[in-house]
Amino acid sequence: MSIRTAGEARDRELGRARVADSEDLQQYYGELDRLDTGALWTVANEIEPWEPHAFSAPTLWRWSELRIQALRSLDLVAPEDAGRRVVYLRNPRRREISAVCGLLFSGIQVMRPGERASAHRHGASALRFIMEGSGGYTVVDGHRVDLHPGDFVLTPGGTWHDHGVDEEGETCLWQDGLDIPLANALEANWYEVHPDHHQSVDHPPNDSEGAFGGPALLPTGYSWDRPYSPLLRYPFDATYESLQRAASAGVESPHDGVMLRYVNPHTGGHVMATMGAAMQLLRPGEATRAHRHTGNVVYQVARGSGHSVIGGHRFDWVEMDIFCVPSWTWHEHANASTSDDACLFSFNDFPVLEKLALWREQGLTGDHPPQQNA
Amino acid sequence: MSIRTAGEARDRELGRARVADSEDLQQYYGELDRLDTGALWTVANEIEPWEPHAFSAPTLWRWSELRIQALRSLDLVAPEDAGRRVVYLRNPRRREISAVCGLLFSGIQVMRPGERASAHRHGASALRFIMEGSGGYTVVDGHRVDLHPGDFVLTPGGTWHDHGVDEEGETCLWQDGLDIPLANALEANWYEVHPDHHQSVDHPPNDSEGAFGGPALLPTGYSWDRPYSPLLRYPFDATYESLQRAASAGVESPHDGVMLRYVNPHTGGHVMATMGAAMQLLRPGEATRAHRHTGNVVYQVARGSGHSVIGGHRFDWVEMDIFCVPSWTWHEHANASTSDDACLFSFNDFPVLEKLALWREQGLTGDHPPQQNA
Amino acid sequence: MSIRTAGEARDRELGRARVADSEDLQQYYGELDRLDTGALWTVANEIEPWEPHAFSAPTLWRWSELRIQALRSLDLVAPEDAGRRVVYLRNPRRREISAVCGLLFSGIQVMRPGERASAHRHGASALRFIMEGSGGYTVVDGHRVDLHPGDFVLTPGGTWHDHGVDEEGETCLWQDGLDIPLANALEANWYEVHPDHHQSVDHPPNDSEGAFGGPALLPTGYSWDRPYSPLLRYPFDATYESLQRAASAGVESPHDGVMLRYVNPHTGGHVMATMGAAMQLLRPGEATRAHRHTGNVVYQVARGSGHSVIGGHRFDWVEMDIFCVPSWTWHEHANASTSDDACLFSFNDFPVLEKLALWREQGLTGDHPPQQNA
Amino acid sequence: MSIRTAGEARDRELGRARVADSEDLQQYYGELDRLDTGALWTVANEIEPWEPHAFSAPTLWRWSELRIQALRSLDLVAPEDAGRRVVYLRNPRRREISAVCGLLFSGIQVMRPGERASAHRHGASALRFIMEGSGGYTVVDGHRVDLHPGDFVLTPGGTWHDHGVDEEGETCLWQDGLDIPLANALEANWYEVHPDHHQSVDHPPNDSEGAFGGPALLPTGYSWDRPYSPLLRYPFDATYESLQRAASAGVESPHDGVMLRYVNPHTGGHVMATMGAAMQLLRPGEATRAHRHTGNVVYQVARGSGHSVIGGHRFDWVEMDIFCVPSWTWHEHANASTSDDACLFSFNDFPVLEKLALWREQGLTGDHPPQQNA
Repeated sequence: MSIRTAGEARDRELGRARVADSEDLQQYYGELDRLDTGALWTVANEIEPWEPHAFSAPTLWRWSELRIQALRSLDLVAPEDAGRRVVYLRNPRRREISAVCGLLFSGIQVMRPGERASAHRHGASALRFIMEGSGGYTVVDGHRVDLHPGDFVLTPGGTWHDHGVDEEGETCLWQDGLDIPLANALEANWYEVHPDHHQSVDHPPNDSEGAFGGPALLPTGYSWDRPYSPLLRYPFDATYESLQRAASAGVESPHDGVMLRYVNPHTGGHVMATMGAAMQLLRPGEATRAHRHTGNVVYQVARGSGHSVIGGHRFDWVEMDIFCVPSWTWHEHANASTSDDACLFSFNDFPVLEKLALWREQGLTGDHPPQQNA
Repeated sequence: MSIRTAGEARDRELGRARVADSEDLQQYYGELDRLDTGALWTVANEIEPWEPHAFSAPTLWRWSELRIQALRSLDLVAPEDAGRRVVYLRNPRRREISAVCGLLFSGIQVMRPGERASAHRHGASALRFIMEGSGGYTVVDGHRVDLHPGDFVLTPGGTWHDHGVDEEGETCLWQDGLDIPLANALEANWYEVHPDHHQSVDHPPNDSEGAFGGPALLPTGYSWDRPYSPLLRYPFDATYESLQRAASAGVESPHDGVMLRYVNPHTGGHVMATMGAAMQLLRPGEATRAHRHTGNVVYQVARGSGHSVIGGHRFDWVEMDIFCVPSWTWHEHANASTSDDACLFSFNDFPVLEKLALWREQGLTGDHPPQQNA
Repeated sequence: MSIRTAGEARDRELGRARVADSEDLQQYYGELDRLDTGALWTVANEIEPWEPHAFSAPTLWRWSELRIQALRSLDLVAPEDAGRRVVYLRNPRRREISAVCGLLFSGIQVMRPGERASAHRHGASALRFIMEGSGGYTVVDGHRVDLHPGDFVLTPGGTWHDHGVDEEGETCLWQDGLDIPLANALEANWYEVHPDHHQSVDHPPNDSEGAFGGPALLPTGYSWDRPYSPLLRYPFDATYESLQRAASAGVESPHDGVMLRYVNPHTGGHVMATMGAAMQLLRPGEATRAHRHTGNVVYQVARGSGHSVIGGHRFDWVEMDIFCVPSWTWHEHANASTSDDACLFSFNDFPVLEKLALWREQGLTGDHPPQQNA
Repeated sequence: MSIRTAGEARDRELGRARVADSEDLQQYYGELDRLDTGALWTVANEIEPWEPHAFSAPTLWRWSELRIQALRSLDLVAPEDAGRRVVYLRNPRRREISAVCGLLFSGIQVMRPGERASAHRHGASALRFIMEGSGGYTVVDGHRVDLHPGDFVLTPGGTWHDHGVDEEGETCLWQDGLDIPLANALEANWYEVHPDHHQSVDHPPNDSEGAFGGPALLPTGYSWDRPYSPLLRYPFDATYESLQRAASAGVESPHDGVMLRYVNPHTGGHVMATMGAAMQLLRPGEATRAHRHTGNVVYQVARGSGHSVIGGHRFDWVEMDIFCVPSWTWHEHANASTSDDACLFSFNDFPVLEKLALWREQGLTGDHPPQQNA
């Protein structure tokens, strides 16, 4: 498939900036520069691209490598010095802002039994996808949430949170997803250390699930006006079971297989103001068709193996691998197995694009050859 | 407890209509009458009551009696003549509009194996609470929904619907709740018979549950802008289990025990534009405190036994009994058992009151004696 | 044009209730009656009409007659005894609920210079259209609003309000529109007398207009979450001028000429939760095409003369006449003059129909003969 | 007043990253680097600042200088080569992204009588504040909008627009405000040249003002679901008059004097999805108190003279000067005249901060000395 972006040749068209250089103009540009100004036509074609320009590269991080490095940090730094013991994923083209893709951040956090990180809060929002371990927990504004592999967990912007692993637990590993680069780009991040360094838990454990985790049921006499979901954990089992039932009900997308968004049960919308998340099921043998959209996505393989073609490059993945799809980049997924399910967890910045009326989507339909591996 | 409504004595106050009669006025009133007009002060105190005036009486209908009468209709009328074989509940004070309470309608519908009612649609919205039988189903806009005891089911205003019982099923009984009196009072009800008398089912059975019935999960790539929930059935088991978990999570109201609203998963709001519904759990030995609010409620006992005090009158109830609480009437509930749960299903017109900014609520808190049985 | 409602003949169709009577059934009905129940098929066709059934009759009240009667009340009752000196318009078919049309109330209020009615508030919402006089004012939650002919004024449900006329003013007449019958039908009206009988004015006069009455401009640093417009007066001059500009801009409806809704500037929606209002311009010689919709409308002629055909009946009107269009009744308007504008003020219950998903509309388009005068 | 940001000293606290370097760690960092990963604790304190970090410098551009340079471009480039003849304002700290402040763009556009730029559209949104000239116009999706000094005009993202000056007009100058840097940072900008290079005008001129520019009045029978205001021009005269009336009504902010937001009349919200705008009045002699907030603001002096203290620096301004206030920077304004009004037009990115739940504000109240000129 030949999908090419409109190119520079078209920048000679009427309607684009195509001013020929001259000595007079050079002198003029110099004077403008001294006034902290510039001539728009010297930068217009660059800042007004024909199509959305992604700053990140499609990239895959192998869990087999990440895991080793994350575990190594256990002996290298103490949580009370590191703040959090996290190995973050750095997109090769986004080194300067420590982003995994677009304006999203991703890191692998590791904690040992008996450890407890100090409580803090910040303008940025965080989410977690749990990979391994037992006895892990996070406390969010006084509510304790237990962490099990496959769970999706929220610590929304502005909430106090601290994580730990019970003494009798096992070393825990999870992915942290945050909007730190976005909050910084918007000049709105801030940070606060909890005055007591640790929160007290003043609700029954996992109470948000008891209150808000039923199917289309919500407590009465309760008002919720915060810009995020009151449900703090979305357990894997219920999610996987829901995917199976959705498949039977005929829910499917040509681009994503069977895909369910984690939602704020009070709005049916994204779980947080800046980030959304989803779990998708690729049935045995299923391969999807390419589409592209504004917005960045970070995927983690929750189950199974397969490959994705992203911007013409093929990435093979196995369980727990992490990969990203930059904005406006064609992508499609395939389950490698003809007998087993594959599941992809993902988080994204779609709420930003949607709220700011910058969402755009294009999908290939009908018969077309898959993208070539570039 | 002495809870009395402000009385007529206060109608002598400054600020109320208190014009003494006279011959001149009588003549004046006659002339006004001939012009299709009247003097406001002759009706003001009546149409502007101190407190919300309910037109209905608190009433309980025993299932033991209702069931017999509903079953009798099986031999008395054919569904193709009756339209629907329904015994409706008529509030003693609302005979003229066939309402169960306020502007709500309730009826007991009964169908035999192999029967199928003809498809229709209307401006009014309907909901159902299933009581007994097997093999029952309803088809809503081409989606088949199977009916099991304890399930809560929607057929929103404007949707085609027809009900039936499979040949190999058992006689089915359910409660129909509708807003017919409201739609009529608002002069907006209408009725249409399906051109083919029966719908074809063009989706997997119970597909709405597969798509929208997961816990805080919704399909992607789907837009929903109708004024009702896309989830058409809320099964009893999941609801009961959610109540148990909510109880453990500390969800409770002093007036209602542990109470969960059935919601539209796309909005977190009521299931339909004019009616809401809920299931509440009264734990063994639990008795709630009295409150009152605008809006009417029809309760059906889903499990257990107990009593409610409504407007000073005590009503004892057992499984499947139906009773109602009129607008602005004090009410409180008690589970009769110290070992078993009691569950009350209810539906209401709260969305109307809330949207029209006419919702009002008052609750008794602190120590107070229960209402007296009048 | 023959526009007839679907009739009773169709009630013999499959899909309607058409049970033949019998002795067994009569006995059955008697038993049902004793249990406060009934058989749905005996009332179904009545409570589920083929099309929306209006309870009110199209009616016109002549201002020449209303004015005389309203002024007569000045000498017959004192405001402190009458509460408010109001002659209300009673639809010939809605006598029992004192409604002008549907569930709306309308009355003509009259006050003399130096008079001041006592302050109160109620669940019902009120609006006013000012007809004559000077020096009139109303105080709404401490904000004084001066009343001039042609102005549209709000006193939303739950707000304290008291009216008066300054000593140096002239006798004032205005129309009061309220949703009292609706609030009563929904069992949610209530009434409270102000503890001091009069409010103090604690803001600059007409401050709501200074703050919220600019064109698409709103103050910063202000939050407004009440279910009604913060703008309390919509002056006639600005409204009339806006209609002229809208006409030049090509704003027009085949059914209503140039029509502008008064809106809540914080939402662009109706001014209050239960009632909307509008002003429409019929240009010289303009005649509109018939349409019908759910919802009731009360019109008052703000300027000019003409006629309306409502449900097949022609009503000729002159300035300040009041007439009503019941739900689902065909209606069309014509300006009698070929040189002067005609303007119709109107208020309605459209917010109720829209919010409850019961709004329905049908319009005649293309060439068609006007309705016949029945 | 000493307003200082929390400093680096606090980065030694428990709860911050404070890992001492070592040879082992250096080797570890190298290995992480090879896997496109890094250790969070090496960047945490930088990407999680204590308080929002602004990338821009408070800056003022003198109109006397800008105007000369803008006019010079008339002879240096033709509009058909430049696309648009615009001198853009380049914040000294944001050169690389051509931003005036934060992620906002500002430029001075100049057109001669008889010129017409070619039509295009883009993902980014634009607004204009008109400074001088006559006969200028813009065409937005087929609607012609005439441009007069002081007017505020919209060309929302995705709409076709082309500007021109009538033959008989005078050279026009206006400020263009855009969200180009934001749309690029979010990887969502795109550009399209109109197939005919010019739009045809297919509505009465300035029709959006006729339809949507009345005070709290909107056409009936019209639905609007786009994410921006249908009102395309907000004329200066009506805005200035509204400010005067708002002042009389007591509308005022301690930080901003009398300030009115330009709003979308259908929502009461910001005029576009990513940018808001306002006009504020500083009365003779008025000086405001400092406040700070997330979000960036570009001001242009619409009338009068005075000064602002921004981040401790004093900037004196006269008519048409442009200056900016970066995110989270203290600022206060003063009118230099004791007899004349000063008016500041401004546009901002507040919608972004508000929608993404990143808005934060702090204001000084009570007695405090003004900020010192740093």
